[in-house]
Amino acid sequence: MSHDFLSLANQGVQGLKPYEPGKPIEELERELGIKDIVKLASNENPLGPSQQVKAAIAAAVADLSRYPDASGFTLKQALSEKLSVTPEQLVLGNGSNEVLELIFRAFVQSEHEVIYSQYAFIVYALLTQSCGAVHRTIPAKNYGHDLDAMLAAINDKTKLICVANPNNPTGNYINPSELKKFVEQVPTHVLIVLDEAYFEYLQADEQPPSCDWIGQHPNLIVSRTFSKAYGLAGLRVGYCACHPDIADLLNRVREPFNNNSLALVAAEAALADEAYLNESVTLNTQELGRVCQWLDTKNIQYIPTKGNFVTVDMKGDAMPHYQALLTQGVIVRPIGGYGMPNHLRISIGTKAENDRFMAAFETLGLA
Amino acid sequence: MSHDFLSLANQGVQGLKPYEPGKPIEELERELGIKDIVKLASNENPLGPSQQVKAAIAAAVADLSRYPDASGFTLKQALSEKLSVTPEQLVLGNGSNEVLELIFRAFVQSEHEVIYSQYAFIVYALLTQSCGAVHRTIPAKNYGHDLDAMLAAINDKTKLICVANPNNPTGNYINPSELKKFVEQVPTHVLIVLDEAYFEYLQADEQPPSCDWIGQHPNLIVSRTFSKAYGLAGLRVGYCACHPDIADLLNRVREPFNNNSLALVAAEAALADEAYLNESVTLNTQELGRVCQWLDTKNIQYIPTKGNFVTVDMKGDAMPHYQALLTQGVIVRPIGGYGMPNHLRISIGTKAENDRFMAAFETLGLA
Repeated sequence: MSHDFLSLANQGVQGLKPYEPGKPIEELERELGIKDIVKLASNENPLGPSQQVKAAIAAAVADLSRYPDASGFTLKQALSEKLSVTPEQLVLGNGSNEVLELIFRAFVQSEHEVIYSQYAFIVYALLTQSCGAVHRTIPAKNYGHDLDAMLAAINDKTKLICVANPNNPTGNYINPSELKKFVEQVPTHVLIVLDEAYFEYLQADEQPPSCDWIGQHPNLIVSRTFSKAYGLAGLRVGYCACHPDIADLLNRVREPFNNNSLALVAAEAALADEAYLNESVTLNTQELGRVCQWLDTKNIQYIPTKGNFVTVDMKGDAMPHYQALLTQGVIVRPIGGYGMPNHLRISIGTKAENDRFMAAFETLGLA
Repeated sequence: MSHDFLSLANQGVQGLKPYEPGKPIEELERELGIKDIVKLASNENPLGPSQQVKAAIAAAVADLSRYPDASGFTLKQALSEKLSVTPEQLVLGNGSNEVLELIFRAFVQSEHEVIYSQYAFIVYALLTQSCGAVHRTIPAKNYGHDLDAMLAAINDKTKLICVANPNNPTGNYINPSELKKFVEQVPTHVLIVLDEAYFEYLQADEQPPSCDWIGQHPNLIVSRTFSKAYGLAGLRVGYCACHPDIADLLNRVREPFNNNSLALVAAEAALADEAYLNESVTLNTQELGRVCQWLDTKNIQYIPTKGNFVTVDMKGDAMPHYQALLTQGVIVRPIGGYGMPNHLRISIGTKAENDRFMAAFETLGLA
């Protein structure tokens, strides 16, 4: 009796490869038996969670045997005020990853095409694969989105067009006027997924007022996250703002309790803690500037970035350098899976953490 | 310009209705302006989370700006010892709801049939709908699974057969020998989803050794949860044990960080806290006995139950009684959505909570 479960699985699933996350600190400790490890691999906020978040969690722990609020009532109220949209326009996800997944599951089938850029966030490709849909990967321009080519690729079968701004793992950025022009040119039958996971790291005048465009462009879905500048990667809270009819459909696909109780109260506390957000963004701006200046001094080439990370060109296979950095207790992110085998993505940490990575580069003769 | 997003959505999604959770305490407070509310609507553990869980959460909070361990390494190690399966046979979900969802998404498409019992947990029907697959709902026998009829419904298109034991919302139970006989008769091309969310409430000699059957029956998937007897409904942790090839497929469909950091550490602490589990089960056994005895005394008919709830027959439309109980500050669960408009499902709470529901029944002239 043979059990070929792969052949029983849905078509898209058969070709799926799991997402490869950044190496956890504990794993490197187990493997190399070293301590004092610096992880600059997952674009996490180096400050740790805000004090207000910790207090909100401590206050909510007694109630954990109760199911979460399936509607996310109070978090949506707070987000709706912040973004000037109605609660009916919001969908909460278990990370913005789940928000993206809900969009694909609600709208994409095997007969559809999905457009995204080469080097764009890899989850677009994974989800297209899992729906068994057609990948339309548009060659990048200077590692960033070629918006004109993306528009030209739209046809009757196109269901989604995904844009990450700033993009991960390249850090590329599209300014508000370019982006607006693009949104205006996408036909209504194509949903635009604007993934703004790194939005908060932009300076105020660089932030596209994308939520304000939804009224005029009901096919626009803006997704954001609490995992980056809000410092809550461990709690998995993302959301999107969109037309209420789209939100209603996504909420039908959504599991009823997709955000757990502590995630909901933590996100609400993080949203209210503007001082923490400002501190996080200021630290990133300063340290990103300092790291780029050092890279310039050392003649190490990198992609200009607006995120909380910088992607450097190792001028050859980056994997041996990644491995060598591990032995120095510095975890960065190889991005061969993105078709960028010569690059390493390095998250911006605290001053001390960034010093560690720069020192490791020097020790290894990379700088 | 019209925007008919419903017509853009995938076929199954168009007919989806959202799951209706039990009414949250805060919602009733907002609506009726009353305090001191007793919620017996969601089969939650009335003891609140264990002290060990609270301590584990407090210890993990500082790390919340880091992503969770995508593999759930330590929780899987602990579960694998407890269940005598390998870590490669385990899949963790954001609640067992997500585990069920992963199974459907990996294996079920519109050309397939899914078999489940009338009055079985409603998520089987919702997921069948969202996959656009064919519902094969088998009429219940005394509100429970008619296993012979379920077997007889299997054909070439059958992909999944779902069995809840004990079943929610009826409390019905299938004993180990009946269940084993059933599992032996299901052909290998049909996956058996054995949903054991209420497993821990069974007495030791009533618990089917279902994980031990996987070796002989690689098409068997056993799902369980931390939401009930382990007291962690708010944190959303479920899991399944199955053949490693099935686990591998489910892990490909799974989002990388589907369980958040606090959920992972809390589940691990709950699993280790056997005293809490025993206390929870003992309380339920005692109070369920006391409540059923009271129902007998009052000649109120109910379905014999092995869960942490009892489903009573109100001998007519139950909704007015549900509403009347709300005015008394007692939230129970109407189950008209299950095709049982005359029944109310009442969770077993603490002694004081159960006294409140019995007193409310008497006040309202229902007992």
